[in-house]
Amino acid sequence: MTIERRKLRWNGWGLVDAPDVLGDRAEGVWTWMSRALGVSPLPSTPAKELSDITLPPVLLDSHTLRKIESVLRAGRVTTDDYERAFHARGKSYLDLLHLRAGRLDTAPDAVVYPTSAEEVLALVRLAEAERIALIPFGGGSTVVGGVTAEPGKGHVAAVTVDTTLMNQVLEIDKESLIACVQSGIYGPQLEEALQAEGVTLGHYPQSFEFSTLGGWIAPRSAGQQSNKYGKAEHWVVATNLATPQGMWSTENFPGSAAGPQLTDLVVGSEGVLGIIADAVIRLHPAPEAKDYRGYVFMDFAAGVAATRDMMQAAVPTAMIRLSDAAETRSFRALYAGGAEPDAADQFCLMVVGLEGDRATVDTALERSRAVIERHGGMELGEGPGETWYRSRFATPYLRDPMMDRGLAVETLETATRWSNIINLHEVTSRAIADAMEANPGAPGARGIVMAHISHSYTDGASLYFMCTFVRDTAREVEQWLAIKRAASDAIVANGGTISHHHGVGTDHMPWIGSEKGPISTAILKAVKDQVDPTGILNPGKLIA
Amino acid sequence: MTIERRKLRWNGWGLVDAPDVLGDRAEGVWTWMSRALGVSPLPSTPAKELSDITLPPVLLDSHTLRKIESVLRAGRVTTDDYERAFHARGKSYLDLLHLRAGRLDTAPDAVVYPTSAEEVLALVRLAEAERIALIPFGGGSTVVGGVTAEPGKGHVAAVTVDTTLMNQVLEIDKESLIACVQSGIYGPQLEEALQAEGVTLGHYPQSFEFSTLGGWIAPRSAGQQSNKYGKAEHWVVATNLATPQGMWSTENFPGSAAGPQLTDLVVGSEGVLGIIADAVIRLHPAPEAKDYRGYVFMDFAAGVAATRDMMQAAVPTAMIRLSDAAETRSFRALYAGGAEPDAADQFCLMVVGLEGDRATVDTALERSRAVIERHGGMELGEGPGETWYRSRFATPYLRDPMMDRGLAVETLETATRWSNIINLHEVTSRAIADAMEANPGAPGARGIVMAHISHSYTDGASLYFMCTFVRDTAREVEQWLAIKRAASDAIVANGGTISHHHGVGTDHMPWIGSEKGPISTAILKAVKDQVDPTGILNPGKLIA
Repeated sequence: MTIERRKLRWNGWGLVDAPDVLGDRAEGVWTWMSRALGVSPLPSTPAKELSDITLPPVLLDSHTLRKIESVLRAGRVTTDDYERAFHARGKSYLDLLHLRAGRLDTAPDAVVYPTSAEEVLALVRLAEAERIALIPFGGGSTVVGGVTAEPGKGHVAAVTVDTTLMNQVLEIDKESLIACVQSGIYGPQLEEALQAEGVTLGHYPQSFEFSTLGGWIAPRSAGQQSNKYGKAEHWVVATNLATPQGMWSTENFPGSAAGPQLTDLVVGSEGVLGIIADAVIRLHPAPEAKDYRGYVFMDFAAGVAATRDMMQAAVPTAMIRLSDAAETRSFRALYAGGAEPDAADQFCLMVVGLEGDRATVDTALERSRAVIERHGGMELGEGPGETWYRSRFATPYLRDPMMDRGLAVETLETATRWSNIINLHEVTSRAIADAMEANPGAPGARGIVMAHISHSYTDGASLYFMCTFVRDTAREVEQWLAIKRAASDAIVANGGTISHHHGVGTDHMPWIGSEKGPISTAILKAVKDQVDPTGILNPGKLIA
Repeated sequence: MTIERRKLRWNGWGLVDAPDVLGDRAEGVWTWMSRALGVSPLPSTPAKELSDITLPPVLLDSHTLRKIESVLRAGRVTTDDYERAFHARGKSYLDLLHLRAGRLDTAPDAVVYPTSAEEVLALVRLAEAERIALIPFGGGSTVVGGVTAEPGKGHVAAVTVDTTLMNQVLEIDKESLIACVQSGIYGPQLEEALQAEGVTLGHYPQSFEFSTLGGWIAPRSAGQQSNKYGKAEHWVVATNLATPQGMWSTENFPGSAAGPQLTDLVVGSEGVLGIIADAVIRLHPAPEAKDYRGYVFMDFAAGVAATRDMMQAAVPTAMIRLSDAAETRSFRALYAGGAEPDAADQFCLMVVGLEGDRATVDTALERSRAVIERHGGMELGEGPGETWYRSRFATPYLRDPMMDRGLAVETLETATRWSNIINLHEVTSRAIADAMEANPGAPGARGIVMAHISHSYTDGASLYFMCTFVRDTAREVEQWLAIKRAASDAIVANGGTISHHHGVGTDHMPWIGSEKGPISTAILKAVKDQVDPTGILNPGKLIA
């Protein structure tokens, strides 16, 4: 039970036959976007059809292909055009620019579908002997270039390892609330299997429907309810990876002081230290009750203070999602089908999600309300909570029709301590706005930048930025790069991490060195050289 | 404000002038111990006086000593006998056997007291140039040989770096609930500074009064209230270490997906990757309310089930301490001054500690009572809680008078998943009992083994074993090693980690390799070689 590749968009989000995400709001939304972004009418910029694209030649000879076939089950090696195109890149704005334009130079030479840890290990060994780069690929939903299929130095070809046939729940230990699961399982299949047993992982990133367990572990992913269920680094107990040195099984204990825990090195390793075959993960009882409701604050600072106080007072929330004023205005426009709020409006929407047993949810509701009220927040009831919950996986579907209309939407994220949140929000928003202004897609075009807090800790929170602008079709990669660079420079110069949950991939490579510093960088390189001396594992990502 | 070394016992626990921990219970307790351990009268086995011991010659010439002096403040380098003896070893039973017998072959050649990160860095650089091993030393309370002062291969001498003059709180960010603190600060001084600002780290290991922040980070220490405040790996945000490659500052964010977080490598690195100069740590509001109370269960399994259910239902406890039947019997004997319970008695004592704001403590009390009642637990009120709380740092003081009377007391600990807790408790208890029986200290002597759970997670818990036996003075190191080996072999063979919070040091070296496996072991070695190619940092510990 995986998702057949041809049912998925190779150059866009989700299912080929998904209905229009805007439904009957479409006309109002496009009118609003056109007005808000300062371009009318919206241009028509359709994507190139795959049938009109010539893929690069396959660099593997038939002899080598047969060797690869020999370590896998029959029919699990393909050089089919659709498969190569589907696996050429991830789902970032930059990826879509390339894919939609038909630039498929990063298409892998072959795609393979192993079904077991043993097969992956045999593949890794063969690849090392044959100098073939291997790119691990789950749902391929990376937005930082984490699956771009490029061989490294000295490699003869690049083969993408699609893990989605490794999708079995191997063991559920209900007494210990842990499970051992193969890495290629998609979110819905995993939760279905777990919830049938009364348990949950509770990890619901926006990509949930089209991303996999291994894809969550590799870049330290965060689910929308991470306040309760934790990021990947919090719920991974142990991992089993195929490496050129053999199967690497990391520590498997609830807590250990037997030296540094190498599991911590795997979570965030983005496929460069091994291909995750399976993992032991921490579960929770499936929540008996859920409560999602909205609140509104007079300004962002008041909402930030309330979020911080809930975290520091250990109010057991599952999610606190605080939109800044710009995002709040956009949501109102979007969900009202284009009715435009006053641009000076500083109201900020917060959605608080509570999950757990009835008693915990009731207590958390009472306590969160008290904190919010103390900071001048006003309750809006369950309506905004339900709206958010219903559409929580839908937003990515909006990007494809926007790109069809000459528009761009980019997201990036960071995290910092509470005492720096307001500052980082301001300087990064400003840097993005300035870069959009300096790189207009059309005369009179205006960009929109908005942000929210969606993952909080006692000591700080994430900041997630989204910007929308008119594409400069003559130089759209350069336009994106200018904006991305401005935002990333601002983040790193102002005490933010280059990523809170998207990872490094290829896109954050220019900033990772300064964030880690020379000693940490050298250590990571030493680890890489020890495990993968010929650099066949996901070259070009994370470790230079 | 540190603790003057001469006020501390160089060959025992705590303050030289501490009163007898047993007070007026002494006679009854010794009578009970004599009877329970099957040796009467208890022998007299006093420790050797330092004045009767000849220390090994100092291997540093005056020229090199002057070089060391040149990078530190005046008077911060010493080769004094007391200082060398004090820093020769930690506080394990094995350490005390050696120290009390006057075997001071591991006395460092010199002891130095840096006061800043810059001084530590200068020292590390000098040591590398001069091939001198450096042994970081905070409170020296390690019970696994973590500070034993032995040079490694190719080193000319061993110098212990006592960090306790690096004891300043550098910054408290109350808004973000974090602080930056020098590593050598003792527990009480740290908490005094934090609580003056209304905040707390909440890290209270049994060694609290005589251990330091850096000493908690290095071996992934756990405080008694770790259910609420976390182990070191949970509350360390960032570290600043002096290494042969320069100052190593690890990531400093509330959450990051910018690759593996190297901070995770530092927590648990036991001084072999650098000398921790300062760290950023997560704080909590100082608790408004505390509630410690006792419960009793019909047997260990019922108490385990209640502990597990409280964790898995996310009841916000600070501590759940569940004694097995043997420990419960010993406590009753100890606190009743020797009145002996029936040996067939299977009652198990649980102390539940709650801390936080009033509302959280009230809710937690109600919810914990409900879970405990469901498992047949009976409430004993606040009495046992108060008794435990009052004596929570006192137990280590009991070892010295026991050793004066020919008795041994050894502790060791592990952790495993819930579904394996009962099994691991049984096989390890049995292995220890069998080893004590096979290595009797006197004809007719009997050992006692007892255990408790004191740190719990949703997926499992720690198990802490204590054993008491009559020393076989003719072969006391061999006797200890036989028991230690039997316990450790049983733990590792039955799914436990070789340590949950004591660390690896020298004592767990025989088991760390099989626990980590060859790939993790090679990675740790590669990291070590990258950071410390000449192996001057704490040789002989953690990484072979």
